[in-house]
Amino acid sequence: MAFGWIDEQAAVRRRAGLVRTLRPRPAESPLLDLASNDYLGLARHPEITEGAAEAARRWGGGATGSRLVTGTTELHGELERELADFTGFEAALVFSSGYAANLAAVTALAPHGSLVVSDAGNHASLIDGCRLARGTTQVVAHADPEAVRKALGTHAGPAVAVSDTVFSVDGDAAPLAELAAACREYGAGLVVDDAHGLGVLGDGGRGAPYAAGLAGAPDVVVTVTLSKSLGSQGGAVLGPAHVIDHLVNAARTFIFDTGLAPAATGAALAALRLLRREPERAARAREVARELHTRLTASGHEAVRPDAAVVSVRAPSADQAVRWAADCRTAGLAVGCFRPPSVPDGISRLRLTARADLTEGQIDRAVGIIGDTRP
Amino acid sequence: MAFGWIDEQAAVRRRAGLVRTLRPRPAESPLLDLASNDYLGLARHPEITEGAAEAARRWGGGATGSRLVTGTTELHGELERELADFTGFEAALVFSSGYAANLAAVTALAPHGSLVVSDAGNHASLIDGCRLARGTTQVVAHADPEAVRKALGTHAGPAVAVSDTVFSVDGDAAPLAELAAACREYGAGLVVDDAHGLGVLGDGGRGAPYAAGLAGAPDVVVTVTLSKSLGSQGGAVLGPAHVIDHLVNAARTFIFDTGLAPAATGAALAALRLLRREPERAARAREVARELHTRLTASGHEAVRPDAAVVSVRAPSADQAVRWAADCRTAGLAVGCFRPPSVPDGISRLRLTARADLTEGQIDRAVGIIGDTRP
Ligand SMILES: Cc1ncc(COP(=O)(O)O)c(C=O)c1O
Ligand SMILES: Cc1ncc(COP(=O)(O)O)c(C=O)c1O
Repeated sequence: MAFGWIDEQAAVRRRAGLVRTLRPRPAESPLLDLASNDYLGLARHPEITEGAAEAARRWGGGATGSRLVTGTTELHGELERELADFTGFEAALVFSSGYAANLAAVTALAPHGSLVVSDAGNHASLIDGCRLARGTTQVVAHADPEAVRKALGTHAGPAVAVSDTVFSVDGDAAPLAELAAACREYGAGLVVDDAHGLGVLGDGGRGAPYAAGLAGAPDVVVTVTLSKSLGSQGGAVLGPAHVIDHLVNAARTFIFDTGLAPAATGAALAALRLLRREPERAARAREVARELHTRLTASGHEAVRPDAAVVSVRAPSADQAVRWAADCRTAGLAVGCFRPPSVPDGISRLRLTARADLTEGQIDRAVGIIGDTRP
Repeated sequence: MAFGWIDEQAAVRRRAGLVRTLRPRPAESPLLDLASNDYLGLARHPEITEGAAEAARRWGGGATGSRLVTGTTELHGELERELADFTGFEAALVFSSGYAANLAAVTALAPHGSLVVSDAGNHASLIDGCRLARGTTQVVAHADPEAVRKALGTHAGPAVAVSDTVFSVDGDAAPLAELAAACREYGAGLVVDDAHGLGVLGDGGRGAPYAAGLAGAPDVVVTVTLSKSLGSQGGAVLGPAHVIDHLVNAARTFIFDTGLAPAATGAALAALRLLRREPERAARAREVARELHTRLTASGHEAVRPDAAVVSVRAPSADQAVRWAADCRTAGLAVGCFRPPSVPDGISRLRLTARADLTEGQIDRAVGIIGDTRP
């Protein structure tokens, strides 16, 4: 049996209560959604869905090829210009996912002989980027510029430090300005993943690097996803023009991947334009997160103070986290549930996402259900 | 200067004439397209673009989360069932790209202590999958079942052989039945990437594994892309249900990636349904490829006999390949141009793709232009 060993792993997972199954959702769910990453409430916004529909009609169902062959439309060019302009970087390059953007940025900026200093709490896609890169990776303590400094000090030659701007599990922010200062001392580059910062942090949602005064810096490269606050799919790398040109020539997940579909490109562009027109959405998402945190901790839950729109509530165990999330669902509330192996520290959590379009009534209801179902 | 070393690499590329730049295309191009991977001519088909538009309107601009949280809609479930049914496999799992599907299949099926036997001509995404996998990779000669047998014979423990079904550079097919036989002798699994086979090979486009009598085999796993013959974006893994369940639980590019956007899901579903209704499109794509090959070789070009819809024509050098492709473009014909580092053997080529919807007049024109511009 070629794949017999799989069944042994499955049995182990079953015994540990860690089996994951897919639960297809209907178009009109009766659940109150605090589980998606639709931070600005744009995924179902008519301007965004029309942006997708219109782009599909005008440009086709797919990009039809690699970005280097037939897969770059003028629509991709528009999105790249507007993303760069919005976030304050010289240039941008769009990918089929944030995952692909992270693989590209890390591998292309960590050549043979280089050092990659990677935060212990980084997202799976950054970790995979480190593992694919030709350079050597050193994992350092979470959110610790001093540890980054120490690691950089051991190396001669090209080096980058790599970090999420907002960590997806606990919703805490990286000390970006200090990380940049540490990198500059050693002539190293800084690569940060602003997946959970774009649209939420910085003036009008321009992102965490913008908020930290790093927009347009010659030694900073930012990756983003179009799939969270922009309510679409895809990713992008933002940075100096020569770095973007380098990615076009060297990044395998750019060169050997079909371009982002026109519909996703159009939806992201529509979301970006809407955000420029309604910049208050970003502040509102942060406000909802702070309110959720304040009210949950006031009623005795253990939750990390949110730096962006992710609110993480500790659960006593993996089993109880699963049961808690299931009980919330039964009561009409969708929340995320993070447990091993998705949590580096082994601590299971409910993961709530603040959406800019949640009403006070909905926040009341969510806090009530979470309290009532507490294990 | 953190990224100074990039400029040295750029200078080397410039001197070698290997700089790549993006060329955004308009929605209505005057060029005759033999460069895209839109093998069945479906990317601009109204049923496919309406499938995308309708899905965006009904389900939103993005999937809003990981497939394990909020990112699985009933539409994803439908596409998975119909893909499995069409290709003859027990189950299917949809990813945000074919690249992500390949990373998932290889890494999840090559655990620590296992062996991956990888064809020397495999696609970049399979190679990256091998590099990310915990198992050991052995690269073997191109399309050589005997070499696979030899490699498998050196190993005890879980093993898989990994191959494209149709190789993207030369358009030649892998000896699938022989590869499967070799794997079976050693109790190894076979993982094949049918990116260029789905929609083109097998009865009504059911793909190369179907054509080779491997559909539904317990020891065969197939990856596909939704971005070529189906005119959309995304990828999928097809295989036995317990393998698909394993991917749901273990594949990082599934767990830590946002689900495929509804528009891309809807476009692929519409394309699949159209292909079921018009199965002759698959045979027509193959016929166009054979005709291109026959006419080009008759007029003295060196071209590999196409096994699917990719026709590869040798160019004397990288420089001349670039000039040839540019001259075709000036004359109104878009063709692909493969050159180092995208070609494993260092040989530069024009890459033509046959589309099922090319007319005899268009084939005439294409053959004429390629001959007239020959270096
Ligand atoms: C921090 C972080 N980076 C990258 C990604 C990947 O982005 P995408 O889903 O667009 O591939 C995610 C989540 O999906 C994320 O949370
Ligand atoms: C053989 C092969 N596998 C996989 C891929 C990747 O598929 P996708 O573009 O959907 O990521 C491609 C091309 O893009 C390919 O040619």
